[in-house]
Amino acid sequence: MISQVNNMNEILEQALLYDFYGELLTEHQKEIYEQFVLEDLSLGEIAVEAGISRQGVHDLVKRCGRTLKGYEDKLHLVEKFVSIKEKVKQIDELLDGYKEREPQELVADIRKISDEIIEEL
Amino acid sequence: MISQVNNMNEILEQALLYDFYGELLTEHQKEIYEQFVLEDLSLGEIAVEAGISRQGVHDLVKRCGRTLKGYEDKLHLVEKFVSIKEKVKQIDELLDGYKEREPQELVADIRKISDEIIEEL
Repeated sequence: MISQVNNMNEILEQALLYDFYGELLTEHQKEIYEQFVLEDLSLGEIAVEAGISRQGVHDLVKRCGRTLKGYEDKLHLVEKFVSIKEKVKQIDELLDGYKEREPQELVADIRKISDEIIEEL
Repeated sequence: MISQVNNMNEILEQALLYDFYGELLTEHQKEIYEQFVLEDLSLGEIAVEAGISRQGVHDLVKRCGRTLKGYEDKLHLVEKFVSIKEKVKQIDELLDGYKEREPQELVADIRKISDEIIEEL
């Protein structure tokens, strides 16, 4: 069963991939996939609601997951965004500790990170 | 003719869209589209090289442009990246002028922008 192999990281990754590439799925796929990944409904519940078999829901969810992963494998945009987000958080941490630093040093350290972000964009 | 309606902004936009979504085109499409948009070859030159008609190149380039634009219309990831890039540049400008500011003010202003970036990510 899908729900047993889905640990929290996988769920988060699926939600992130859906957030980025979900609009490339069909309306029908989006509806089912959202119920499974975002609303955490069971395959059985979704099947009853959608009027399709439990196996049908299972297959659709699997297929959507592969499709979304396929976009990321080609485009790497989630990876890029996650990396930028981490760097902005590093800037935030430097800002938190500004009182213990010389302004000149602080500015140089933030600049280093902002340059890295620009390079990724 | 495509080359007459392509102003510089359009070329830049096409290159940016290609940079983000180009991997979703086929190898053949990528080859032709790169020659036109990135290497700035003429339709005639590309046609000779690829062994297809000038009209064929024209149609393929148009179709690829629409495909890439279609991805952006759905995903808005280029728009998001451009917005983040502008904000990082605003941080850089604040860093440039750090000597004229109180550290506390500078930190508050940078934090405001970094928070905005995090919200977009």
